[in-house]
Amino acid sequence: MADLDPDAFRRRGHAVVDWVARYRAGLPSRPVQPAVEPGSVRAAWPSTLPEEPQPLGALLAMLDDIVVPASTHWQHPRFFGYFPANASLHSLLGDLLSGGLGAQGMLWATSPAATEMEQVLLDALATALGLGAAYTFGGGGGGSIQDSASSAALVALLAALQRANPAWRDDGVAGTERVYVTAETHSSLAKAVRVAGLGSRALRVVPFRPGTLTMDPAALAALLAKDRAEGRRPVLVCPTIGTTGTGAVDPVREVVRVAVGAWVHVDAAWAGVAALCPEHRDLLDGVDRADSFCTDAHKWLGTAFDASLLWVREDAALPAALSITPEYLRNTASESGTDVDYRDWQVPLGRRFRALKLAAVLYGYGLAGLRAHIRGHVALADELAGWVRDEPGFVLAAPPSLALVCLRLATDARTRAAMEQVNASGEAFLTHTVVDGRFSIRVAIGGVTTSREHVVALWERLRKAAATV
Amino acid sequence: MADLDPDAFRRRGHAVVDWVARYRAGLPSRPVQPAVEPGSVRAAWPSTLPEEPQPLGALLAMLDDIVVPASTHWQHPRFFGYFPANASLHSLLGDLLSGGLGAQGMLWATSPAATEMEQVLLDALATALGLGAAYTFGGGGGGSIQDSASSAALVALLAALQRANPAWRDDGVAGTERVYVTAETHSSLAKAVRVAGLGSRALRVVPFRPGTLTMDPAALAALLAKDRAEGRRPVLVCPTIGTTGTGAVDPVREVVRVAVGAWVHVDAAWAGVAALCPEHRDLLDGVDRADSFCTDAHKWLGTAFDASLLWVREDAALPAALSITPEYLRNTASESGTDVDYRDWQVPLGRRFRALKLAAVLYGYGLAGLRAHIRGHVALADELAGWVRDEPGFVLAAPPSLALVCLRLATDARTRAAMEQVNASGEAFLTHTVVDGRFSIRVAIGGVTTSREHVVALWERLRKAAATV
Repeated sequence: MADLDPDAFRRRGHAVVDWVARYRAGLPSRPVQPAVEPGSVRAAWPSTLPEEPQPLGALLAMLDDIVVPASTHWQHPRFFGYFPANASLHSLLGDLLSGGLGAQGMLWATSPAATEMEQVLLDALATALGLGAAYTFGGGGGGSIQDSASSAALVALLAALQRANPAWRDDGVAGTERVYVTAETHSSLAKAVRVAGLGSRALRVVPFRPGTLTMDPAALAALLAKDRAEGRRPVLVCPTIGTTGTGAVDPVREVVRVAVGAWVHVDAAWAGVAALCPEHRDLLDGVDRADSFCTDAHKWLGTAFDASLLWVREDAALPAALSITPEYLRNTASESGTDVDYRDWQVPLGRRFRALKLAAVLYGYGLAGLRAHIRGHVALADELAGWVRDEPGFVLAAPPSLALVCLRLATDARTRAAMEQVNASGEAFLTHTVVDGRFSIRVAIGGVTTSREHVVALWERLRKAAATV
Repeated sequence: MADLDPDAFRRRGHAVVDWVARYRAGLPSRPVQPAVEPGSVRAAWPSTLPEEPQPLGALLAMLDDIVVPASTHWQHPRFFGYFPANASLHSLLGDLLSGGLGAQGMLWATSPAATEMEQVLLDALATALGLGAAYTFGGGGGGSIQDSASSAALVALLAALQRANPAWRDDGVAGTERVYVTAETHSSLAKAVRVAGLGSRALRVVPFRPGTLTMDPAALAALLAKDRAEGRRPVLVCPTIGTTGTGAVDPVREVVRVAVGAWVHVDAAWAGVAALCPEHRDLLDGVDRADSFCTDAHKWLGTAFDASLLWVREDAALPAALSITPEYLRNTASESGTDVDYRDWQVPLGRRFRALKLAAVLYGYGLAGLRAHIRGHVALADELAGWVRDEPGFVLAAPPSLALVCLRLATDARTRAAMEQVNASGEAFLTHTVVDGRFSIRVAIGGVTTSREHVVALWERLRKAAATV
């Protein structure tokens, strides 16, 4: 049949590697975000599929001509939008190995190495982060690689529902369940609540501690007590370590103390990996008492999407909620109860060997290299925050958090206009949030090739914009 | 910071490509499934992470020494278990390009090319499959790449819940919703029902048409009428084109006619791609009247996991169920309402540029090549079924379906023993199902390099096993 033979793959593979190397090397001279109208790619790309095989060169030419000019370049060193989406070149090597093996890791039996390598890496990383032994398989918990923090939040919620009510698997939700977040919690929690059939009315927005953007434990306690008194069932509380808007850190230890009886899922999607550095270890204060913890290797830990790391303190919690075994998946190893079948830790059945791309990063950088990667960005953010403080007309919109700096000008209109001018220039890319009702620019530093010169260039461009809006 | 520079990536990338080429070339001489005890990989892999960067060679050596010997080789030409998990070498090239670009396609604005290329490819593929214009963006519907058929079923169910009750987003499930499957429907539907908060009691198992393993439309009609009469709300019916057990095909046209008012989601995860061949087009009879249709490019269409293709007939249906917009995701393009934001078609927010690996397959094979890939496997299955029919002691357990042949020996014990002997030999890999209460071996033909010699080898090994059990 018509797959490439290995020799042809070798030749074409080298050509693709070279294409990627050229693309990455050429990024600094491209606009970060192109000017592109909706529909232009659809109009340019052929609307019918080729009948006969096409040479690789034809596809690469279409990428060069159609795709690249219409792409936002997330790996660009002057991309400061959203959060970084690190797809380090190290990780690409591991991802290619994963495709090469082409294994399905849904059950231990369907690929023992894929399952066990994931277990051992997640155990080792839990230790390196200081999560505590309770989150390792050796300690009765364990970790898994999910596709995204959204999915991690969803399965944590499902485990919480099952733990709160063992009849949930059969009877479904009762309608009295409640989930506690803040106005700064990631929208994936609201999505998980909806997906799980609770409806948005189940979402309780806990007020902030006065003068902060962090969850007020006293207000949480009051809400929990009120809901319980009125016959509702608190099932999950989600404190965030590093909110998307401003990088705020909820007081996890106090939240855990107050939330007794509810599952505490800690969303540290962006910031959690900083705990690799001892000086940021206090970020995780209280996580050892929570039920689950999530941080994304695909944001700031060099690993190409998708690689969201979810640890739970009770290894049976996710399978209790998610396991269903039809005849065609039965096997001796599963029935022995000694192995881990990761399909029971997630919604999808199928599973790629994602531990390989994580391993390629952990081994390619080494822990020292990853700490340098994180520390470098944090130092640049500190420097940028200093420039903002010292610059007339600029204001820090929130306290800087790790490598995230939120800033604004005197008015919302000027702030927005400045951001739009920078983005339209193609010289850097920024996104925004609203802090205390004010439109604010987020500068998220963290690209795998972002260094001081790029932050300097952004700052110069931003000052220029501010002077002309 | 410590990512590879592009030149170092070029050298290491070539080495990894060569490793993959060597691995694939060497597969025929490996056992398909190794003998491996639970825990052996965890014991062999270092339990702590390296402090300093490691050379690529060290990681590759660990793969050779630890991972490969403990892997089930899904890309092996004599892998006949489950369904094929095609990770063609073509697709790996596209996947590497995707990692290279490292784009996030959650919104149109975050990567216009990723979104639009997916739209145009899914439109073109809908046409090539004969799904009908209603499933294309031009026709008011549209397609998307999901991670798996499990997730596709889940989001179809969520869209169905929202359509059945516009208050679902806010109020959650009512508890009266019902979902209709058969005993042969994939377990992902039961999982979706559980995840969505309906509980397993919401799952209605429609009886088979007598003498078949396919949904009985009359029985479905009776169940729907009874549930409605008793105040329950039918929300989704899932007919399957090519069940996992035996490849049975539910009568979609009749199901759609009977299911009026409920969402009809057609699960053709494995078999759907066969409709690229005109002689198999009748598989899709009635799909043009359903609400959604799913087939996996990562099973039998050459595309490395994950690439499940989901089309809906109403492009607003999934966003109606799944859209939530916090401030930090607002942008001009989304608010114009003219673009597609694929995050609203799925549970995760983040999104890899998966259209590239699909494109690499569609352009690398060409439609003619893909038809040859499918036809070759179907012809081999026909030949194998003939051998089974002619062989004393062997029985076809169900009518062969496309490239899936289910067979058994005289007793369950002998069938199981024969399968276990083949699997233990490492010469081929098989899995089983239960048909009419009888343990039956499934031979799923479909590997990217599986050709006649491999099916002959399997058959010889199976006959030898049957003679000795």
